[in-house]
Amino acid sequence: MQRYFVEQNHLPQSFILPEEIYHHAIVVLRMKSGSRFEIVTANKQVLLVEVAQVEDKKASVKVIQSFEHQVELPVDVTIMCGLSKKDKAEWIVQKSTELGAAHFVFFEADYSIAKWEQKKRPQKLNRLQKIAKNAAQQSHRVVTPQVEFISNIKSFPFTDFEYRLTAYEEAAKKGEKNAMRNLTEHLWREKLQKVPRLLAVFGPEGGLSADEVSFLKQNDFVLAGLGPRIMRAETAPLYLLSALSFALELG
Amino acid sequence: MQRYFVEQNHLPQSFILPEEIYHHAIVVLRMKSGSRFEIVTANKQVLLVEVAQVEDKKASVKVIQSFEHQVELPVDVTIMCGLSKKDKAEWIVQKSTELGAAHFVFFEADYSIAKWEQKKRPQKLNRLQKIAKNAAQQSHRVVTPQVEFISNIKSFPFTDFEYRLTAYEEAAKKGEKNAMRNLTEHLWREKLQKVPRLLAVFGPEGGLSADEVSFLKQNDFVLAGLGPRIMRAETAPLYLLSALSFALELG
Repeated sequence: MQRYFVEQNHLPQSFILPEEIYHHAIVVLRMKSGSRFEIVTANKQVLLVEVAQVEDKKASVKVIQSFEHQVELPVDVTIMCGLSKKDKAEWIVQKSTELGAAHFVFFEADYSIAKWEQKKRPQKLNRLQKIAKNAAQQSHRVVTPQVEFISNIKSFPFTDFEYRLTAYEEAAKKGEKNAMRNLTEHLWREKLQKVPRLLAVFGPEGGLSADEVSFLKQNDFVLAGLGPRIMRAETAPLYLLSALSFALELG
Repeated sequence: MQRYFVEQNHLPQSFILPEEIYHHAIVVLRMKSGSRFEIVTANKQVLLVEVAQVEDKKASVKVIQSFEHQVELPVDVTIMCGLSKKDKAEWIVQKSTELGAAHFVFFEADYSIAKWEQKKRPQKLNRLQKIAKNAAQQSHRVVTPQVEFISNIKSFPFTDFEYRLTAYEEAAKKGEKNAMRNLTEHLWREKLQKVPRLLAVFGPEGGLSADEVSFLKQNDFVLAGLGPRIMRAETAPLYLLSALSFALELG
């Protein structure tokens, strides 16, 4: 079923569709009186609504049912990635949103070949934010992940996160196998009480520099292996999120 | 480190590079006498080689070391996908190869909008096979997955596979949580004896039809939920492979 996000916390039992939703639902998808779709409010309530009347470039809908889905990962995951080339940032945001990520932070890593010129940053972030919103709607999530940029990883408030991990190729090569398992066991116990926060840092195509790795180690990051195969920069976050979902949401 | 595949089972201690590898290593990457890279033989042996001499459009290399990596998933996974639009097949092959898939089979599903015209199939398969080879080399695997096409899912030899699973959106919506966990527990026990074979079927963008699902059920496929979020057609195989790696290779 089609799903749209709105910025309000509460909606009345019957209301006029905001312009953007009107355009997509009525003009693009040609919904008519009686068509149904879902609206997610800012406080994560999911409303099943039905189109009541369409006239004069306006449409009114009525709320049929209100319910709360359990669709969000039980851990709040921030994916922090070194800038990669081409459209990799877009793929990372789209796929990781489908897989449950809560935030994205892109940073200029020591080995980043791609640069985001300062004047183009707002435009790039705007585009990534739109991709996140569409992916969240399509995958039936109740929150849209936020996308940010920082030029220097060292200025980031790491201490906001109880759990910190970096996917380190050298750890994987040395056969590091325990970090992910230990992490998921801790998270499993903690998720019963609250939603813990995890920050996961990934390098760009060339990986993280020795300096970056040593900085992360000093800031209590776990160096985790994600299996024995070498993954591209845009694949590793998908592995992490899938493994977290399997460990925390299934069985 | 750069890695190339060759078709021979055995190579002597010193040999002339095949033309394709010569071109990439010496011409494109500008390797010189003393440069090192890896060669993987058809029987999965990994050789560390060093360029000995470059002259007259030929290069000789000598074997420095020979070793066997444990980089292949302990389960042989065939990813079978309904035809999807645009370049999604390419993404599925590239990413799933990084994540350890052993074979790919694309089929015309009931809801496939994309079609592969008969005369274009060899070309499409050829391109996908090349993508699989490159991804296998880059992710340091010792086998290249094979890519196939079948027009009718019902003609496929299902009984070759001890394990059969399909990712079914309706199962996920109903909160199906146990199939993946049961599967990985069985595989964990069996992998100590041999490499079990798993066939995983995924629908195209529109999902599998009721007829296809009922056919798969009759053929002893497990209908598995892959978490509570709705994933796009090209994302679900990556979730499956990541979860298998986490469950069987880590910890």
